Amino acid sequence: MLKLHDYWRSSAAYRVRIALNLKGLDYKQDSHDLRTNAQHLDSYKALNPQGLVPALDIGGHVLTQSLAIIEWLEETCPEPPLLPRAAADRAVVRAMAGLIACDIHPLNNLRVLRELKKDWNADEAQTKMWAKGWIAEGFTALETLIGRHGGGYCFGERPTLADCFLVPQVFSAQRFGVSLDPYPNIRAVNERCDEHPAFSRAHPAHQPDADTVDFNTR
Amino acid sequence: MLKLHDYWRSSAAYRVRIALNLKGLDYKQDSHDLRTNAQHLDSYKALNPQGLVPALDIGGHVLTQSLAIIEWLEETCPEPPLLPRAAADRAVVRAMAGLIACDIHPLNNLRVLRELKKDWNADEAQTKMWAKGWIAEGFTALETLIGRHGGGYCFGERPTLADCFLVPQVFSAQRFGVSLDPYPNIRAVNERCDEHPAFSRAHPAHQPDADTVDFNTR
Repeated sequence: MLKLHDYWRSSAAYRVRIALNLKGLDYKQDSHDLRTNAQHLDSYKALNPQGLVPALDIGGHVLTQSLAIIEWLEETCPEPPLLPRAAADRAVVRAMAGLIACDIHPLNNLRVLRELKKDWNADEAQTKMWAKGWIAEGFTALETLIGRHGGGYCFGERPTLADCFLVPQVFSAQRFGVSLDPYPNIRAVNERCDEHPAFSRAHPAHQPDADTVDFNTR
Repeated sequence: MLKLHDYWRSSAAYRVRIALNLKGLDYKQDSHDLRTNAQHLDSYKALNPQGLVPALDIGGHVLTQSLAIIEWLEETCPEPPLLPRAAADRAVVRAMAGLIACDIHPLNNLRVLRELKKDWNADEAQTKMWAKGWIAEGFTALETLIGRHGGGYCFGERPTLADCFLVPQVFSAQRFGVSLDPYPNIRAVNERCDEHPAFSRAHPAHQPDADTVDFNTR
C-alpha cells in the first residue's frame, strides 16, 4: 500500500494526489501540518532530508519531489499515460510542468513568503503582490503554450502531467486573489479538470486533514 | 544540427550544455545576454514564450525548460544513460535534480534578486544573505542524499542528470561566497565532475560569449 506524506493545502502534494487518482491507485495519507512545522521533525527528516511534503512511501523506499514521484508513477504504472508518446510532445508537457514547478510555485510557497516577512518585514499585502507578480508572469507564458498545444486539457484531449501541476497552481493563485480573466485557456482547462473526479477528489478541501472552516485563509 | 539558446552564466543553460556534452552531441550556441534582457525580445519570445534561456532548437521544434530538455535528450539519445535503470533509482536522481531546480535555483537567480532589490530596496549584501540561506538549506539535504546514494558522482559511479544540476548550482553558490566545507560529499562530487571533459567544456568561463575579464562578477 502506498503512503503519501501529505498536507491538504500543499500545492506539491496536491499534484501527486491528482496523479495517484488519475492512475487509479489507492494510497494512505499521513498529514504533516506545515503551519506548525511538523514536517521538520527528525522522524520525518529521516525519511525526507528536505523536510518537505510530499513524499511517497512505496514500501522500502521513500520518494521525494513531486515531479520525480509522478515520473515514477508513470514508469511503474503506465496506464492511463500522463505523458504523450512522441518525445517532442513529452518535452512540451514536461516544460509546462517545469514552468510551474520551477518558475512560479517556488516563489510563492509558504516557506518563501515567511522569509520575505522575516527578512524585509514584508506585510501581507506586499507578499501578495510579490506572489501575484510571479504568477502573472508564468501564467502569461503558459496561456500561450496551452493555446498552441491544448485541446481541452493543457496538452491535447487527455489529462497529462501538466494538468497535475496546473490545477494546484490555479488553486494557489486564487488564494492570492489572482483573476483568471486574462487567461481564458488556463481557465477553460481548470474548469474542465474541476469536472474530473481524479482532480476533484484531490482538492485540498476534500482531504481528511483539511480545516473544516474557512479553508481559504492562511 | 541542434541549436542551444544560451547564456554563458545561466545555471539552467549550463545544465543543458553538460548533458549535451555527456551525450556527445554537437550543437550551435545562440547567446542572449540576460544582463540587457536580450531574452525578452519578441523574436525570442516567439520561440520561448517565457523569455528565458535555455531553449533547444531541434529543427521544427523549440524545447524549453532545462529538465524537460534533458529528459528529451535521454529519450532520444539513450547512450550514455543519464538515469539509472531501476524506477526507484531514477526517482532518486530526479529528486536530486528537482531539489536544485525547484528549491534552490529559483530563489537565487538573477530575475528574482532583481525583484528583491526593486521591491524591498535590498542591497547586494542582503540579496547575498537571502541566496546563501536557500543554498545552505538545499545543500544540507543534498549532502545527506549524496551520502546515501553517491559513489563518486551524486548517484553511483557514473554521471547522471543529478550531476548536470549540481555542478551549475555549486558554481552559482561559489559566486555568492558559499563555502563547501560543510558539504564534503557535494565538494567531492563537484571535484570529480571538474575533471570530466563534458563538464569542463560546459563551464561558463569556456563559453564563446563569456566575459573575458572578471567573469566572476555580476
